[in-house]
Amino acid sequence: MSDAPIVRPLPVSGFPEWLPEVRIVEQRWLDTIRVVFERYGFCSVETPSVEALDVLLAKGETSQEVYTLRRLQADAADDSARLGLHFDLTVPFARYVAAHFNELVFPFKRYQMQRVWRGERPQEGRFREFTQCDIDVINVDRVPLHFDAELPRIVHEVLTTLGVPPWTLNINNRKVLQGFYEGIGIGDPLEVIRIADRMDKIGPAGVADLLTTRAGLDADQARACLDLAAIRAPGAGVVDEVRRLGVKGDLLDEGLDELATVLDDLADLPAGSVVADLSIARGLDYYTGTVYEAKFVDWPDFGSICSGGRYENLAGSFIRRSLPGVGISIGLTRIFAKLLAEGLLTPGPASPADVLVVVPTAERRAQALAAAAALRARGLKVETYHQADKLARQVRYAARKGIGHVWFPPFADDRDHEVKDMASGEQATADLDTWSPPPA
Amino acid sequence: MSDAPIVRPLPVSGFPEWLPEVRIVEQRWLDTIRVVFERYGFCSVETPSVEALDVLLAKGETSQEVYTLRRLQADAADDSARLGLHFDLTVPFARYVAAHFNELVFPFKRYQMQRVWRGERPQEGRFREFTQCDIDVINVDRVPLHFDAELPRIVHEVLTTLGVPPWTLNINNRKVLQGFYEGIGIGDPLEVIRIADRMDKIGPAGVADLLTTRAGLDADQARACLDLAAIRAPGAGVVDEVRRLGVKGDLLDEGLDELATVLDDLADLPAGSVVADLSIARGLDYYTGTVYEAKFVDWPDFGSICSGGRYENLAGSFIRRSLPGVGISIGLTRIFAKLLAEGLLTPGPASPADVLVVVPTAERRAQALAAAAALRARGLKVETYHQADKLARQVRYAARKGIGHVWFPPFADDRDHEVKDMASGEQATADLDTWSPPPA
Repeated sequence: MSDAPIVRPLPVSGFPEWLPEVRIVEQRWLDTIRVVFERYGFCSVETPSVEALDVLLAKGETSQEVYTLRRLQADAADDSARLGLHFDLTVPFARYVAAHFNELVFPFKRYQMQRVWRGERPQEGRFREFTQCDIDVINVDRVPLHFDAELPRIVHEVLTTLGVPPWTLNINNRKVLQGFYEGIGIGDPLEVIRIADRMDKIGPAGVADLLTTRAGLDADQARACLDLAAIRAPGAGVVDEVRRLGVKGDLLDEGLDELATVLDDLADLPAGSVVADLSIARGLDYYTGTVYEAKFVDWPDFGSICSGGRYENLAGSFIRRSLPGVGISIGLTRIFAKLLAEGLLTPGPASPADVLVVVPTAERRAQALAAAAALRARGLKVETYHQADKLARQVRYAARKGIGHVWFPPFADDRDHEVKDMASGEQATADLDTWSPPPA
Repeated sequence: MSDAPIVRPLPVSGFPEWLPEVRIVEQRWLDTIRVVFERYGFCSVETPSVEALDVLLAKGETSQEVYTLRRLQADAADDSARLGLHFDLTVPFARYVAAHFNELVFPFKRYQMQRVWRGERPQEGRFREFTQCDIDVINVDRVPLHFDAELPRIVHEVLTTLGVPPWTLNINNRKVLQGFYEGIGIGDPLEVIRIADRMDKIGPAGVADLLTTRAGLDADQARACLDLAAIRAPGAGVVDEVRRLGVKGDLLDEGLDELATVLDDLADLPAGSVVADLSIARGLDYYTGTVYEAKFVDWPDFGSICSGGRYENLAGSFIRRSLPGVGISIGLTRIFAKLLAEGLLTPGPASPADVLVVVPTAERRAQALAAAAALRARGLKVETYHQADKLARQVRYAARKGIGHVWFPPFADDRDHEVKDMASGEQATADLDTWSPPPA
């Protein structure tokens, strides 16, 4: 063995990796999410991990967090490439749609499940590399409003199928906020939206303070904004509650109509899964209508696990066409890691195999391999033990890997094949051509 | 629309991305590969895209190609993190095994399908971001030789199932090379291996020249090396051909025994799929036994599409345990992109949907949504058209997305549901509760 110094083998902080028994569950999650997305006819898109920096920064967001690339032994000229890792899947998607505009069929409905990178300080729920699962619909000139309801429906189906702990998808409409703010005489609604978006972090008093000191609102205006933000209702009844505040305006009416339509469309979902919450603002400037933000009920301080909204023209930096869209992003790694940390995720087996075929003796190894091949030909997942060895050791190997069944080829020419059910401990003769593991 | 300058929306050169109808085929490939890997009981591992630079460079290889990371607006101190994107999956796997040594069950058999990055100049078959599919077996102290045969068997099953054009997996054994070179009195066999590995690029004459001028071999030695490298045989008969060169030695015998055993184990595979080729050397120093290299038969200059071999102790930089292993990497993106470029890959549909449900009129939209929900509840993949529109336009949308069936909810209360088969053009009444698309 080498005497060279040992390099510390840990993964870098903020870059999670899982043991096989956890990874197998993550794979099941990814498969489940993909099945639900495809059930609604969304197609898969993957974009490069790397984009030109001017693409990444076209929207002017989160520039601090971007990781840029440089070849290890690059000369100065090489730096001109100006490449960075993507920090979300929305900007690359907008770029993708612009790049392939003439080859795509609109409305374009895609899902995208990829890793993204942010140079943040790692803390609970924040990673520097994580996987997001996004769905977006983008269209030329106009995206029908019913997609604003279809996306939370899909998210509901995903989270329900995954069996995650209780969560609420809060929904609002930027037009309601902007129309309301304009209706009470506020000149710069976007600044008020940005301040209102900090409600979670600084509370109503903090928001009221910033509204007066920074945005220049008077006390009545600030109070009206807080009254609006306090409204929360399970359905389209939210409209009456907003109207009761006595503010009027066309944009407000339009927003309330949209919000009510979306909520009505979702009225069949279980109570509490989708709720109108007028405090939801979403900090990003590009949202123009419906906005979404999902949170765990039991961990209100954990931050959002899904978010998104409707945007008027995200691809406008790349192409001179109006391409509005609506999208939601599911924070897969954030949710998954939280449940893992809370002990709410049951690890799976450390092997995908249905069966371990034992090798009774070196002489009978060929027979064991033939048995494994016969089972594989029937679609079963089969490990063969790697050498002739004590049977107890081979069975223990299956137990440690969580393999549910152990197959014993005949130990003598006049004997049968046998299979042992590791859960019950029962062992019985079995036919290579017909045996299947009982359904889980 | 904004008058801001347009940012060029193309993906960066060397970072491939596919249209939905190509991505859907890539997904099918990935699913197929995963199914085959799991059929042999290999478990999935994913490691972070990013490793500490001292981990990446522990083996001293390919340092030029490594992309290092830096936060966009980092201060000088931030650079100390010294992070880089992985350039293969073998080094991260070795680090992973060392990090989780006490939690893994050995022999540890894993597959890993991930993107890797190399700061190379893009050209045919060379990308800066691409996906590799690796399988490796790693064990404490000893890995049974039969795994050296199992891996090419799995690769054979993968490539056959994918239906790629004819290829050959060339196989050799480093012990044969080293034993042979020692047997003819060469002092530094590794240097000769590195020179022999360039046969493809510089030909026999170039190799002979380097062997004499750089490695200091005499003419007889150089000729013997070329005679060895010229040997190529479909099975264990290769042993006789090597013996005929009259060189002797224990290590040579050991290597020939191993090579014969592996070839015998694979004798049932179709002729030409696995061939002993004594010119295969693999440049990397860490291989110690069996080595593999697969190539397309029809494009001999395209370079290798799979490669790998047996290594004595790849994790030795990270942990003071002897962890030998054997592995093969399938160059997925390289193969996929080549077939795409050659026109040998038939794009799939641009939507995963089995059915498009049309919306006959705005009044009947709820009925269309209900029909779609009923079909989805039975596991079908269903798009609903996004608005009431001319039927011809809705059917054309299905055609452009490659959706095989169009579903017509009743246009009047006394009518039936109907479904149109887009391939045959036939339209017939259909039952929401029983209809399924005919198997493809």
